[in-house]
Amino acid sequence: MKQHFLQLLLAAALLPLGATAQSITRVNPTNWWTGMKNGNVQLLIYGPQAGTLSYTISYPGVKLLKASTVENPNYAFLDLAIAASAKPGTVSIIGKKGTQTVTQKWELLARDNRPKGQGVTQADLIYLAMPDRFANGDPSNDKFADMADPNSDRANPFFRHGGDLQGAAQRIGYLKDLGVTAVWFTPVLENNQGLTNEGGTMRSAYHGYGFTDHYNVDRRLGGNAAYKAYVEQAHAAGLKVVQDAVYNHVGNNHWFIKDLPMKNWVHQWPTYTNTSYRQQPITDPHAAQIDRAVTLNGWFVPFLPDLDQQNPYVANFLIQHAIWSVETFGVDAWRIDTYMYNDQPFMNRCNAALLAEYPKIHIFGESSVTSTVDQAYYVKNKIDFPFKSNQPGGLDFVLEGSMLAGLKEVGTPAATGWDNGPQRVYQALAQDAVYQDPTKLVTFIDNHDHNRFLSEVGEDFDRYKIGLTWLLTTRGIPSLYYGTEILMKKFKDPTDAEVRKDFPGGWPGDKEDKFTAAGRSAKENEAFQFVKTLATYRKTHPALHSGQLMQYLPENGLYVYFRYDATGTVMVATNTTDKPATLPTARFSERLSGFSKARNVLTDEPIASLTTLQLPAKTALVLELGK
Amino acid sequence: MKQHFLQLLLAAALLPLGATAQSITRVNPTNWWTGMKNGNVQLLIYGPQAGTLSYTISYPGVKLLKASTVENPNYAFLDLAIAASAKPGTVSIIGKKGTQTVTQKWELLARDNRPKGQGVTQADLIYLAMPDRFANGDPSNDKFADMADPNSDRANPFFRHGGDLQGAAQRIGYLKDLGVTAVWFTPVLENNQGLTNEGGTMRSAYHGYGFTDHYNVDRRLGGNAAYKAYVEQAHAAGLKVVQDAVYNHVGNNHWFIKDLPMKNWVHQWPTYTNTSYRQQPITDPHAAQIDRAVTLNGWFVPFLPDLDQQNPYVANFLIQHAIWSVETFGVDAWRIDTYMYNDQPFMNRCNAALLAEYPKIHIFGESSVTSTVDQAYYVKNKIDFPFKSNQPGGLDFVLEGSMLAGLKEVGTPAATGWDNGPQRVYQALAQDAVYQDPTKLVTFIDNHDHNRFLSEVGEDFDRYKIGLTWLLTTRGIPSLYYGTEILMKKFKDPTDAEVRKDFPGGWPGDKEDKFTAAGRSAKENEAFQFVKTLATYRKTHPALHSGQLMQYLPENGLYVYFRYDATGTVMVATNTTDKPATLPTARFSERLSGFSKARNVLTDEPIASLTTLQLPAKTALVLELGK
Repeated sequence: MKQHFLQLLLAAALLPLGATAQSITRVNPTNWWTGMKNGNVQLLIYGPQAGTLSYTISYPGVKLLKASTVENPNYAFLDLAIAASAKPGTVSIIGKKGTQTVTQKWELLARDNRPKGQGVTQADLIYLAMPDRFANGDPSNDKFADMADPNSDRANPFFRHGGDLQGAAQRIGYLKDLGVTAVWFTPVLENNQGLTNEGGTMRSAYHGYGFTDHYNVDRRLGGNAAYKAYVEQAHAAGLKVVQDAVYNHVGNNHWFIKDLPMKNWVHQWPTYTNTSYRQQPITDPHAAQIDRAVTLNGWFVPFLPDLDQQNPYVANFLIQHAIWSVETFGVDAWRIDTYMYNDQPFMNRCNAALLAEYPKIHIFGESSVTSTVDQAYYVKNKIDFPFKSNQPGGLDFVLEGSMLAGLKEVGTPAATGWDNGPQRVYQALAQDAVYQDPTKLVTFIDNHDHNRFLSEVGEDFDRYKIGLTWLLTTRGIPSLYYGTEILMKKFKDPTDAEVRKDFPGGWPGDKEDKFTAAGRSAKENEAFQFVKTLATYRKTHPALHSGQLMQYLPENGLYVYFRYDATGTVMVATNTTDKPATLPTARFSERLSGFSKARNVLTDEPIASLTTLQLPAKTALVLELGK
Repeated sequence: MKQHFLQLLLAAALLPLGATAQSITRVNPTNWWTGMKNGNVQLLIYGPQAGTLSYTISYPGVKLLKASTVENPNYAFLDLAIAASAKPGTVSIIGKKGTQTVTQKWELLARDNRPKGQGVTQADLIYLAMPDRFANGDPSNDKFADMADPNSDRANPFFRHGGDLQGAAQRIGYLKDLGVTAVWFTPVLENNQGLTNEGGTMRSAYHGYGFTDHYNVDRRLGGNAAYKAYVEQAHAAGLKVVQDAVYNHVGNNHWFIKDLPMKNWVHQWPTYTNTSYRQQPITDPHAAQIDRAVTLNGWFVPFLPDLDQQNPYVANFLIQHAIWSVETFGVDAWRIDTYMYNDQPFMNRCNAALLAEYPKIHIFGESSVTSTVDQAYYVKNKIDFPFKSNQPGGLDFVLEGSMLAGLKEVGTPAATGWDNGPQRVYQALAQDAVYQDPTKLVTFIDNHDHNRFLSEVGEDFDRYKIGLTWLLTTRGIPSLYYGTEILMKKFKDPTDAEVRKDFPGGWPGDKEDKFTAAGRSAKENEAFQFVKTLATYRKTHPALHSGQLMQYLPENGLYVYFRYDATGTVMVATNTTDKPATLPTARFSERLSGFSKARNVLTDEPIASLTTLQLPAKTALVLELGK
């Protein structure tokens, strides 16, 4: 079904007033807390004719500043001020119309002391998993007959497969063993969406990017309780949790889309208008207004209505939901989907609100661009753009693109090309001067929207190891896409399902269990062990994960860099050619001075002299230097 | 002969003091002026044992602040302060040692009122010619037996061909006719260099980039008199003149290289070290000191010793020469060779000194880079680099690269690729936010170091016309390489000579004379006329050359942009595909509003309606909009 946005218009607004009895069926946020830094909260009140009621609140320390009505009489917005003196308890929201009184209970909770908003840093290694495709811990929640997509079928790439947070929780030990320190799930919120066919392309929402209720984790993933339990177990095991947030759009089955509060709750166009998926009109000083509008306000796809974040009610709703999520679930970092399609002043307000409550939280958005200038625009940068982003981090698409292009040339004549091979990586990092802090970028080498890394590099295991070595040793906060460590491979198909296969062993009865060494092939174990060795080393060696980076101009396909601090120095020396090389090290004296020997971190072999280094073909050595 | 830099060391310093009678054979600058904004000048005094003399100056308003000696006793440096009250006249520089007195006359001239330092702007079109290869007006100066390269042979690509400033002066009318408004010659200063063989590659200096005397224009080009006369004639004809300056290096036959004032006059290395030709170590926050040093202080090629501009005597010498050149010859703009290999704090001082004396002069350096960030580093930019360049302009290598790559895809399926065809140009310009003023960049589509434009685009005349249309209508100060307008073609060979062929008709007796319509083929006349039409139009229409640029996201290989101001609007619509296209214009309403018709600037045809435009395959329309 091709969804047309005009179908979303205000059905309820056409009802004659008073045609239904007033009632309140939803309050968002569903609760709040005492003792927040920002004591103001705006409640969205929803229910038949809820906007026609006159509201009062009588609770010590809670003041109703303002009650607002909007185009759709089913909505009211109540601005509350919660004083520092307010005590936890149940607030009664009282709505009156004539002789009728509607009373709605709303909880004001005490904040707990669980860790939350801990942030992720270069000391971390993030693991990105799609909860529907990772592990199925509770087959009883695979499908629900009352949901828009009532199916579950692992044979069908569009359907739910049954993975859930309970299954993921059972694999926390696997991630710990791998050396992972943080987990990022694609969004866990309810996506009660059916399957749609958009011009021949099937669309479904097992990926989680089409929210239908901000305040409920999808039942098929285990609901709010399972998510809260997951975070608690992860924290207990020393893993942090990254939440994947979506501000740009929601699913067209979202309850508020089916009864829009007002016309400009979403971006409206005379005829359906898709985003151009182009970033340039935003930074281009020569851009036309229409191109900017299409980028920002065009819809991502027809079934994901584009929220108008310049609408203050929308903005408040989204910002409060972000804070509610961190406070409720205790997540540590905040990944933001389709960052560059959002209204950027809104994003700054949202980031600032999160950082005000959780100063250590890390925020990193997805802006899929190809140039450093464009990427810099969306994070704290050193370019005097007319708009200054306050986003601490961002996903480093530029480095991913450079690494993949460079790795594809490893072992070919292009490895020594003027701007090819390791030059691509070197040159990308050489532009770090444009960022306030490039070490806060989240680096990656594949993800749920890209080809699987192993396939990208032609299933060449040497390139695979070089790429993972770069990822785990250069600057930035590395993230690893689930399955990359067990050599999962595939190219994207139009639905992306090929790169989102189930993790073998995640389902009861799976013939293979690659969560265990016994279930993995020798090569898969080699890959797993490779990642584990590096990840474990980086976790325990501050020089590698948080030391300064010094990189040397690649010469003859050989690329050398160092991570160093007062506690030690690690040298990474890559030979991207298909021939062994002897590398004289005199050129590196600025970093080698004081060191005379080394240990090969990957093989544990000692290296007695640093005068020259033997670099096997297509290999990256990771050397811990010694005196 | 492979030149080794150690041969340049201080031969004279080894002479016993007093072995030769003291005398003064050179004073640089060779003269100065009263009434300069900066009244300080440092004289370099050279001659046998000139550094062993005690100097005095007795001239009203001229004070000898300091006399300095250096390692080599043949040099003295005299710091003079010329008071505002000083009158023009002949200054006597008196050097004494014991009973011996050496007197050297030195002229203090009155400044003249001829135009100088007029600058070039977007209203200009610069024509770049190599004077040895453009036109030979005086065959008597083709060669001199007393010069290091005494040959002249048009059949030999390495030898001088005899072109000169007198020949160029005879073709001022040709350039005027073409619509050119400024001339840039590759360097005219003396290059008294022999031919060298560097590892099998022949090197010669007909190109002018190996100065051997800063204060003499090469005799084979006509000397100082011919250069002064050229500028005067050009100015009389309404043409400006751009001087090509070289600070990074000089020829190894330069008189001061053969008797170095001090060891650190040039960059010394334990063994010969070439520059890496890499820009990245300069901007890279992760770079090693050695990589920065090699980029900056490594030699450009073995026969061009690399000047140490951190040596204050070198810096003063170069800065004063720049001012002397503008004041003496009256040039209007200053192109700087190998800009990125120079010490950048020195470049800032030099630029500031020129701008202090000539506030309107334009300065644009050559920094051959591929990324916008790197290019921005060398001009006034909006990036908070640790070093802030004060250079007003720069050659736009990034746009050249984008245009050429895009044009090669014109007429191919790649023309509509996601990041291909016109997208390349669009995306390059979309990064203009990093520059303080991108309109001051000098744009080009080929030059004396690159493949000829026509060859780059596969000798495809449609691509050629699109490229020149873009060059002459988009933002920036366009420059055209000599011969491009008459379809000269060729790929670079290792010596670059193939792309520096003689302009046919520039030599007495040439069989063809492409300076005249009668001497050009029909196709060449079509090309000439194409450039002339556009150049003449842009010269007379401020909207096109100086108006704002607004560009639209290319769609389906169609790229539309506008130049506009209060006086008018010009629309440039390019179809880069190999099929005619119908372009609805509703999307461009921000710029088309108020206009109903147009005139095709290239064909003079009227276009009665703007509702849709017919774009022939592989064509750029230039439309003057009308009400």
